[in-house]
Amino acid sequence: MEQRLIITLTTDLGYKDPFAGIMKGVILNINPTANIVDLTHGISPQNIMQAAFAIEASFQYFPYKSINIAVVDPGVGSVRRPIIVATDHHYFVGPDNGVFSRLYSISASLQVIHATAEHYFLPSRSSTFHGRDIFAPVAGWLSRGVDILNFGDPITDFVKLPIPVPASPAHNIIEGEIVYVDCFGNLTTNIHHMKIDELVLNNSDKEQKVLVRGHEAPLKDFYSQATDKGLYSLINSFGYLELFVTNGNAASEFGLAVGDRVGVVLS
Amino acid sequence: MEQRLIITLTTDLGYKDPFAGIMKGVILNINPTANIVDLTHGISPQNIMQAAFAIEASFQYFPYKSINIAVVDPGVGSVRRPIIVATDHHYFVGPDNGVFSRLYSISASLQVIHATAEHYFLPSRSSTFHGRDIFAPVAGWLSRGVDILNFGDPITDFVKLPIPVPASPAHNIIEGEIVYVDCFGNLTTNIHHMKIDELVLNNSDKEQKVLVRGHEAPLKDFYSQATDKGLYSLINSFGYLELFVTNGNAASEFGLAVGDRVGVVLS
Amino acid sequence: MEQRLIITLTTDLGYKDPFAGIMKGVILNINPTANIVDLTHGISPQNIMQAAFAIEASFQYFPYKSINIAVVDPGVGSVRRPIIVATDHHYFVGPDNGVFSRLYSISASLQVIHATAEHYFLPSRSSTFHGRDIFAPVAGWLSRGVDILNFGDPITDFVKLPIPVPASPAHNIIEGEIVYVDCFGNLTTNIHHMKIDELVLNNSDKEQKVLVRGHEAPLKDFYSQATDKGLYSLINSFGYLELFVTNGNAASEFGLAVGDRVGVVLS
Repeated sequence: MEQRLIITLTTDLGYKDPFAGIMKGVILNINPTANIVDLTHGISPQNIMQAAFAIEASFQYFPYKSINIAVVDPGVGSVRRPIIVATDHHYFVGPDNGVFSRLYSISASLQVIHATAEHYFLPSRSSTFHGRDIFAPVAGWLSRGVDILNFGDPITDFVKLPIPVPASPAHNIIEGEIVYVDCFGNLTTNIHHMKIDELVLNNSDKEQKVLVRGHEAPLKDFYSQATDKGLYSLINSFGYLELFVTNGNAASEFGLAVGDRVGVVLS
Repeated sequence: MEQRLIITLTTDLGYKDPFAGIMKGVILNINPTANIVDLTHGISPQNIMQAAFAIEASFQYFPYKSINIAVVDPGVGSVRRPIIVATDHHYFVGPDNGVFSRLYSISASLQVIHATAEHYFLPSRSSTFHGRDIFAPVAGWLSRGVDILNFGDPITDFVKLPIPVPASPAHNIIEGEIVYVDCFGNLTTNIHHMKIDELVLNNSDKEQKVLVRGHEAPLKDFYSQATDKGLYSLINSFGYLELFVTNGNAASEFGLAVGDRVGVVLS
Repeated sequence: MEQRLIITLTTDLGYKDPFAGIMKGVILNINPTANIVDLTHGISPQNIMQAAFAIEASFQYFPYKSINIAVVDPGVGSVRRPIIVATDHHYFVGPDNGVFSRLYSISASLQVIHATAEHYFLPSRSSTFHGRDIFAPVAGWLSRGVDILNFGDPITDFVKLPIPVPASPAHNIIEGEIVYVDCFGNLTTNIHHMKIDELVLNNSDKEQKVLVRGHEAPLKDFYSQATDKGLYSLINSFGYLELFVTNGNAASEFGLAVGDRVGVVLS
């Protein structure tokens, strides 16, 4: 069976313009056997943390050696560096602006390379579209087996944006926040189910409540278990507490957004 | 020539999130040679009948043995069953919620399997994203040649949603309805051209008229034959009567939607 | 390494409906090894010049012999002809409505074929979806090596829409216009950087200014060089003068659109 390495794309390039398609042309010119998969081109313009979230949620579902390109790049053309990140089993290519911050905190071993070897870039480079001129060709050559050290030197001062972590100001409370809103209007928080399990384990005689703005969002097992149009919560498919409205849009119907506080309390 | 089986995706997962991309990772982990084709991820959230329509309109244009996944799944996590549908030449994988209803009425021979063999699912399963945890891996294994009977037992009580059928309350009239609105605002009805041909054949001395809310939508052969901004009709590329506005949006300009009545009368 | 010819798609078929996916099924039925790449399906309905721009910006990034299908086709079903355009290294398939006009002005040698050989079309053809019935199958057969002359006869009276060209009413001025708005709201003009270089070269003692509606849009090297929310300009990745707002949407924030005048003056 022919080995077709996978290259995924996560960008804010949208679906109206041919930009993501052009990146595919550049990759296929270098490696005609690359199997290019769109993760999404619908990241909100310049929203680095949204892309960071999308990449963290996705990469582990892809085969070993897959290469993940991120193009959310408000600093394109400035001095911000192009980088390659190698974790145990996956590669990542993109700007050094924090878009891979979530990987840095979950990967036991990782190497970050500042890509400087210009012969792996397109010969003519713009200052506005490095997705096409640098990231796509670097990923293309990487997928052909070029060693990451050929692209440049390792760095350790890569940009790491702060990831919001839930707090526990008291033994019976977890204070988290909304970190991602999906296209259904479901709101993912940063409270992992293991954190809730731990809270409950230590206080098994009490009842847990999910609170948003002082109101309860009762915890369910799955979406259709909630039979009215209220705000509910469940543990979502990525292991995090999520707020939802059955067959509705929790974000727009309850005016909730990234950054809003969510609590779990025992009482 | 290498046989790369096709797996199509029809979902309401949208283009903002990486969800459809994650399903592709799961499939490619199981079958690296699968050729994955997006039919659409733009089904309106939880709109089962819209997905049913999209699948019916599409599957026959794909090679034999293609596998079509549908993920429009408001009941995900509940007792609703995952199923595999085998027609003469194609396979379908998705929830047993009626999303394949249109196939049931057009396929001469079909077999429906309740997929229960958990070793073909992802080892860790959520209650909110069976597209990733069940349907993608089942399709992946199916594309590798696993016999459908290995996935579970045949069932006959699968969910069949009612498909709106046009009525003929008199010999000179067909009463149908709008069943699909496309991105141009063109409105497909459930009145097939063969039904109109039959009507005309039996009444060849009379003139056919397409009526919407008591006004005529004159029948044309193609879009640009209509030269003003009125509401017109034609037989569309799937063989059904369709309402349109030349270079306009019939749905928004005339306030028409799925379920609205459309008549064909002879006078 | 297996030769998998690339077929790109540029259409106004959108992402809500399965139309583009159906075209892929038709192609893969004819050539199972075709590598189909979406350029975009987000062209505004019936906007021929927008598609022309997207194709011109993209095709050169794809390997030689790539086939580019365009489906923006308001005249579908009428007498307008299906054509194949062959330039030195690439093929184009679509309606003869001017969608390839930008190629005609930049390609030194080109051949245009009126595709009439119906045995390369789908046997049953509609009058509303030639993307499926004619362009996809023609591209499929072309990718299998059928000579373009087998599809029909060369023509020279193909439709060529006017491309807006910048004017120089005086030696110190270039008058151009906005020709494309991307999903970030950045506005591409038709003023190529070589035109500006030439202007400056002949008047090296003076300073160049980019003017929009009498106000200056100062010229920068890259987006983040502009640190406030004003309107700025730069040379974009396709070599043209572009108007932008850093981390903003120049089109909506300044009410600019295709056709608006942009000037470069020396003073």
